[in-house]
Parts: sequence; structure tokens; C-alpha cells
Amino acid sequence: MKMKNKFSVYIDSLQERITSDLEKLDGKSKFIKDNWEREKGGGGLTMILENGDVFEKAGVNVSKVYGNLPESMSKLLKVDQSHFFACGISLVLHPKNPMAPTFHANLRYFELYEHNVLKDRWFGGGLDLTPYYIFEEDIVHFHKSCKKVCDSYNESFYSKYKRKCDEYFWNSHRNEARGVGGLFFDYCRESNEMNIDNWFSFISDLGNSFLKSYVPIIKKRKDLDYNNSHEKWQQIRRGRYVEFNLLHDKGTLFGLKTNGRIESILISMPPKAQWVYDQTPSKGSEEEKLLNILKSPKKWT
Amino acid sequence: MKMKNKFSVYIDSLQERITSDLEKLDGKSKFIKDNWEREKGGGGLTMILENGDVFEKAGVNVSKVYGNLPESMSKLLKVDQSHFFACGISLVLHPKNPMAPTFHANLRYFELYEHNVLKDRWFGGGLDLTPYYIFEEDIVHFHKSCKKVCDSYNESFYSKYKRKCDEYFWNSHRNEARGVGGLFFDYCRESNEMNIDNWFSFISDLGNSFLKSYVPIIKKRKDLDYNNSHEKWQQIRRGRYVEFNLLHDKGTLFGLKTNGRIESILISMPPKAQWVYDQTPSKGSEEEKLLNILKSPKKWT
Repeated sequence: MKMKNKFSVYIDSLQERITSDLEKLDGKSKFIKDNWEREKGGGGLTMILENGDVFEKAGVNVSKVYGNLPESMSKLLKVDQSHFFACGISLVLHPKNPMAPTFHANLRYFELYEHNVLKDRWFGGGLDLTPYYIFEEDIVHFHKSCKKVCDSYNESFYSKYKRKCDEYFWNSHRNEARGVGGLFFDYCRESNEMNIDNWFSFISDLGNSFLKSYVPIIKKRKDLDYNNSHEKWQQIRRGRYVEFNLLHDKGTLFGLKTNGRIESILISMPPKAQWVYDQTPSKGSEEEKLLNILKSPKKWT
Repeated sequence: MKMKNKFSVYIDSLQERITSDLEKLDGKSKFIKDNWEREKGGGGLTMILENGDVFEKAGVNVSKVYGNLPESMSKLLKVDQSHFFACGISLVLHPKNPMAPTFHANLRYFELYEHNVLKDRWFGGGLDLTPYYIFEEDIVHFHKSCKKVCDSYNESFYSKYKRKCDEYFWNSHRNEARGVGGLFFDYCRESNEMNIDNWFSFISDLGNSFLKSYVPIIKKRKDLDYNNSHEKWQQIRRGRYVEFNLLHDKGTLFGLKTNGRIESILISMPPKAQWVYDQTPSKGSEEEKLLNILKSPKKWT
């Protein structure tokens, strides 16, 4: 099977498995399916669960798009008469309980053609965690789970992709990280060490690990007590999530500039956000503890 | 008196008058004063009122900054060995009642020096209204008030600056206006018709009209009944306000890229925002009426 078909089938089944498991975990709300078409080629399936018992908003989106490359991208990639095929899965899970972190992940595959000949192809993706309150054991569990998948392919992957993740999810205008990181990788191409099937195997092992990385955390935190002030802090921090996505996230900005499907791109937006002037947590508080951790990336394994 | 001093004095007194009147109108919360300094020259006074009876968040900011021009801007303005002086007042008033519109305005003055010689100077600014529910008489009042000031200087100003405002506050990724417009102008330089004192006079007349344009509207709407669903709609629309400011607003992006003072730049953020997947108002609803009006700029006078 061609890689694009193999990966397409994989992300469809991953979307199916993830949404089915999350729905069971939530117990109240169901995922709504929204099939959409892209005018210039391809389409996708957006699945969204809102106002659940566990998830305030959970979006799992699969897209498979193709067509001529926008001119700006042709220039960037230095190709002529080019077309592309791109497909991927992305998920953003915003839990209701402020003690539980937001989870984001995506896996993507890109093929670039010049004069109808395959010129280049690569995988990209990653996963990362955005807590509102710090439970160190949760972050350690998450990073260990990331490292385990990485180590079974190449012992250099975890530290390399963890660093890239810390660099990418940096809210530079605030001088703080969006969250506590995870993995981020791009342009994963065939090499002597990893052929395209090895990459597929790595990517799919990682996809298969998403729920194992996150679900144990949410199960532990979803029923913890919280009050209005915890909820307010969650919403203020979700304001920072909005700032990152609209100011810095390349995927979001690329999607918006190339007339992507707005509702699927902005599915990553948190359900509720607040902005409070010059909000500073009190000394020694749990909120301050989070900010201190976000000031510079930590080693978690 | 030099124009920069004259305008500085004016915006200080305008800030004083506006905050004093808004505080009386609110009746509950007071403005907090926050003096700040800019590392590379100048500073400002940010005044903020939160959680009032009338205003959920009202920010009035004055800044006076100077120094060497960032290289990117020197290139843009084609100057060498340059420095600048810039000062301005900006206000964003987010009322509590969803029946009352958000008001935004700013006035600014810029001086550009090359080799210590004044090379160019101009005024800019404007005011605009962002309603959540449509009361046509409010919008007509607002635009008439804008037109009145414009007409006493030049009969072409209103239509020209109204059009610029409609163009500027366009949420292109949503294909809709942020609000119902007002005035927007920039690079207002000396000419045969308007010398710099005439421009100062126009700008200050406009500043003096801010409260007359807005306060009658908020007085009419601040005590109207509303329910949770109106409030939810207000917060969804405030999500669009966030999107505009972080994706398209040149002032915000310039401020963030040049290490401006984050809290003063993002004072424009609404207190609360929501994102609901693919939210579509029902046929014939008041919410749909707003969306129809935002689809293309209307004539209001």
C-alpha cells in the first residue's frame, strides 16, 4: 500500500478509537461528527464533544487535503509546478476540572510533487501537556510515556524532540512556556537509519500511546474538588493558550491564511478564557508554582 | 508650545476627564492607576477599572515613548540614523450588559527625526463600536456624532474615515466586520488645507466627543434585562474581538513584536470570551440580525 493510503487508514482508525474511548470516559456528552469538503481538493472529518462531565471541549480532527501548492509555499520549498498531499490527525482536549491538564497532539504526513513526480515526503507531529495546577507525578508519567516510545526507535529522539517541543510552545511575548512540553518533530524523512516504513511505525506507535499518556492523568484528577477561584485561574491560563495559538502557532496561522476551514482550525480554542489586568498569583501559592515551572523548561525524566 | 508637548498635555487631561466621568457612571468600581516606564525611553499611565456595575472592564491608557527607531521600522520609513517620539491615548470599554456595545478609541501623534532633524510628523486615531445586539438608533447616534466633528473640518472626512474604519476592522478569516465601525485615520500630515494646528484641533475635538458619542448609548442599555443566553452570545462575540486583536490589529502586533508593555497592550482583551464549535444563530433571531449587519458595512447617516 502507498504510504499516503497506509497513513490515511491509520489516522481514521486512531480517530475512531480515541473518540470512542474518550466518550466512554466522559460518560455524558457524545462526539458530533462533522464531515467537510475542501473546495480546492480533499476534506476531513471533525469530531467534537462539548459540555461533557469530564471534557468541557474535546476536538479530534482528521483532514486529507491535496491540490496545487500555494505560491508562497512553492517559493519556500523551492519547487516548480508542484502539488501536494497532506493528511493528519489533531486533537485538543480541554477538561472541565482545573486540576486536570489540557492535552494536545497531532500527527501529519506531507507529500510534495514536482511535475507529477514525488519529490519529497515527511512526517511531523507531537504531543504536549498544559496543566493549570502542578502535579509533578502527572508530568513525569507523561514524559516517561513519550520517552518510552522514542527510546524503542532511537535513544536520541526523546531529548531532541522534547527540546524542540519546549522551543516551539514558547509564548515569547509573555516569556513563558505554554505548558510543560512533551514531543515536537517535523520533516522526519527517510535516512540510512530510518526508512519511511520505520517512520510510519514510530508515528503510529506514538499515536497508539496518546491515550496511555493522558488518560491515567485525567482519571486521577477529574473528580478532585475545586472552587470558583481555581476555575478563574484555569480560564486566565486558557487566555494564554489562545494567545499562543493566534500569535505563534504556525499551523493555525498557515490554516487561516490559506483559507482553511475556520471551525476545524479553531477547534483548538478553549471553551472559555479570561483576561484580568496584571494578574499576579500570591507568594507561595499553587498558581505561582505553575508560573515558576513555566519560566524555563524542566527535565522530567 | 511644541506640538508634542501640546498633545501630551491634551491626552493627559482627556484621560483624567474620561476616567472621572466613567467612574461616576459606573458607581461601583474605581480606576486603578498604574504608572510604568519603558526601558528604552518614556513610559505611560495605564488606568483600569474591573468588575464594575456598568463596566466589566474599562481600560484607558496613555503612553509617551521615544528612542531610536527599531531597524525594521527605519527600513519601512526609509530613514537613516533616526529616532522617534510617539504618544497617544487609547481606550477600550467592555460593558457588563450584553445589550450595550463595546467602545474602542485612540488618538496618537508621531514625530520622526533623522540626524536629529524633525523629518515628518502625523496624527492618527479613530473610534469604533462593537455591539452584541443591534439597536439601530444607537449606531446612528454614534455615526452622527462622528460625522458632526468631521464635517466641521472637511465634508469629505466622514465618508473617507468611515470607509477606512470598515476596511481596518475586518476579520478577514471570518469574512465579517468586528463591529459597526466609526472612524479610522492615519498619517494625517500638514497640507495646504490643514496645518498641524488644524489637525490638533480636529483630533482634540474628536477626543472631546468620545463620551458624547458613547455615554448616551450605555446609559440607555446598561439596565436592560438579559439572561444567560445573551451573556453567552456576548462572550462568543468577544472571542471574535480577541481573534481580531491577536490576528489582525497592527497596533497590538507591533507592540508585542517590539517588546511593548504586555499588560498595557493587551488591556484591549475582553474580560471573558468563549469559543463554541460552529455556533450558528437560529433563523430570524436577534443574534442572526447582528451577523447579517456585520457581513458588509452599512451606511448609518
